[in-house]
Amino acid sequence: MSKFLSERYKDLLPYVPGEQPQDMQYVKLNTNESPFPPSPYAQRLAREAAGDLQLYPDPECKQLREIAADKFGVDIDEIVFTNGSDEALCFALMAFCGKETPVVFADVTYGFYPIAANLTKVSFETKPLKDDYSIDVEDYLSVGKTIIIANPNAPTGMLMPVQDIERIVVSNKNNVVIVDEAYIDYGGQSVLPLIKKYDNLLVCRTFSKSRSLAGGRLGFVVGNKALIADLNTVRNSFNPYNINRMTMAAGIGALIDEEYFEKNCATIIKNREFTVQELKRLGFEVLDSEANFVFAKNKKISGKDLYLSLKKKGVLVRYFDKDRLREFVRITIGAKEQMRALIEALEELL
Amino acid sequence: MSKFLSERYKDLLPYVPGEQPQDMQYVKLNTNESPFPPSPYAQRLAREAAGDLQLYPDPECKQLREIAADKFGVDIDEIVFTNGSDEALCFALMAFCGKETPVVFADVTYGFYPIAANLTKVSFETKPLKDDYSIDVEDYLSVGKTIIIANPNAPTGMLMPVQDIERIVVSNKNNVVIVDEAYIDYGGQSVLPLIKKYDNLLVCRTFSKSRSLAGGRLGFVVGNKALIADLNTVRNSFNPYNINRMTMAAGIGALIDEEYFEKNCATIIKNREFTVQELKRLGFEVLDSEANFVFAKNKKISGKDLYLSLKKKGVLVRYFDKDRLREFVRITIGAKEQMRALIEALEELL
Repeated sequence: MSKFLSERYKDLLPYVPGEQPQDMQYVKLNTNESPFPPSPYAQRLAREAAGDLQLYPDPECKQLREIAADKFGVDIDEIVFTNGSDEALCFALMAFCGKETPVVFADVTYGFYPIAANLTKVSFETKPLKDDYSIDVEDYLSVGKTIIIANPNAPTGMLMPVQDIERIVVSNKNNVVIVDEAYIDYGGQSVLPLIKKYDNLLVCRTFSKSRSLAGGRLGFVVGNKALIADLNTVRNSFNPYNINRMTMAAGIGALIDEEYFEKNCATIIKNREFTVQELKRLGFEVLDSEANFVFAKNKKISGKDLYLSLKKKGVLVRYFDKDRLREFVRITIGAKEQMRALIEALEELL
Repeated sequence: MSKFLSERYKDLLPYVPGEQPQDMQYVKLNTNESPFPPSPYAQRLAREAAGDLQLYPDPECKQLREIAADKFGVDIDEIVFTNGSDEALCFALMAFCGKETPVVFADVTYGFYPIAANLTKVSFETKPLKDDYSIDVEDYLSVGKTIIIANPNAPTGMLMPVQDIERIVVSNKNNVVIVDEAYIDYGGQSVLPLIKKYDNLLVCRTFSKSRSLAGGRLGFVVGNKALIADLNTVRNSFNPYNINRMTMAAGIGALIDEEYFEKNCATIIKNREFTVQELKRLGFEVLDSEANFVFAKNKKISGKDLYLSLKKKGVLVRYFDKDRLREFVRITIGAKEQMRALIEALEELL
């Protein structure tokens, strides 16, 4: 830390991303990436865009927004794109929270929320998950604060039904409810259509998982026109050209190639079913997941030991050194052969 | 504006980027882009990266930082990359300013500074340029505040000598001095080597101009290790994966292909000399520019009328509706044929 660091950030503890080791080739099941390359059409459009990089990108992302708006059944002014969905979360915290409006989220959820809240000088409050690791809807009714709900939640993978989220949105009319649907494409039902009905609902999405663009950095937010205008006010004050030309092109390709997207989602769901079945056979307890990962524990071994033993065998999973999570590991659902390699490694270990 | 917008941002007025009209093909001299496509090697590396986008990028940008550190004669821990240099400026304002430390910059400079200051809740103070549009060094000595100097300045194009900046850095030991060298590659001398000597100097650079990557979004900051660590604390709290894989690859290619870079800078300098000479022949007064643009006025016509008349003739330049700038237009230096088209249009007009 330099002596120049502003008082307001002296205690900032930044996010630590999942490890990306370079020492050997791992079966990489630790950062919820897709095992499939981006759609060939997305790749082609991205490559074509590389020739025109001397020109600024369209700061309004008009073409991408048009295609996305059409795909998701919303208006072009009800959508804004960001450099990954972490940026979207920061913009939303800036726009809709502050001293007068703290934010509330679960004690066990995406670890980036408290960090982004600290950066944007927003105080936060956490609500404990229930004993079965589900979110208690009652905790979020009429709280009078901004709310973030990851649905499905991470690292549990558990889904909250649309009706429950709608109850939360209805009971917090004077506050924004942000639903982070990073993992919604693996069997969950989206609340996105509800943005037409409620002016306080924001739905946050990413191209990093189901559309195989984690390395391209593309997220977006859908909501009422006035909310999106506010997010654009923040975005245009922070970085008006936040989406580069190649990523914009890749995003267009990924949206148009719906067939590839659907096939990949279906494969992940099938591989998840296979993995859950095999894990249970090996004595694991697995939380109900509707995401591209599962959260599992085995009485015979702690989460940390399991993580370390698997790493030695060339399989990378994620372990969280946190109360109520220490017994578990989070396992990304990859291609069938990756999941077979995981199961074989576990068979040798247990 | 929604009723949910935070009190702290009710008055935020976002940056308005230079126009990108779609109605016809213009001789586009309004946003200081390079007329040359990115280096073929940069394009090739970017295209190759498009195939691996399902994987997150390296959040530490290690390879890119290694190559850049080598190129600029600094340590790998003395450099950090950002999603364009606007993001770098926001991170620096967050990290090194605040209620206790306002920021100071010229009244006529890059229009993004006051906007970024408003967003990051940093109060700012402006110092008027001298009558000849140069920055008055005396204004910045021992001010006890964070300082931003664009060098060359925009939209004037005028360069401040390294010795003057060094005086400012020395006299403000307890504050960070940010030198924005977006346009330094067109004949200016960089203060970058001074980061080894002073722990309060930050140099901000971009790949948008001389390296033809405006559409790729890549900026970076060089400074003392402790300052860079602070910027990384902010970056990792805001968006740890802020640089996508394709841009990272393009940046590597653009740095390695030094020959292409040097040839393009030399061409722009030559075309600038040609343009200045022709403008003077047509009765223009032109400020001394060391950038890839010139700031020029002609007694016969106001800046606004000139801008509008040129636009009608298919030539796009930039006009600033602001005191002391209204007589001028800012003209980007492009390829020789673009500058010839500009001169021909002016000959018809005047």
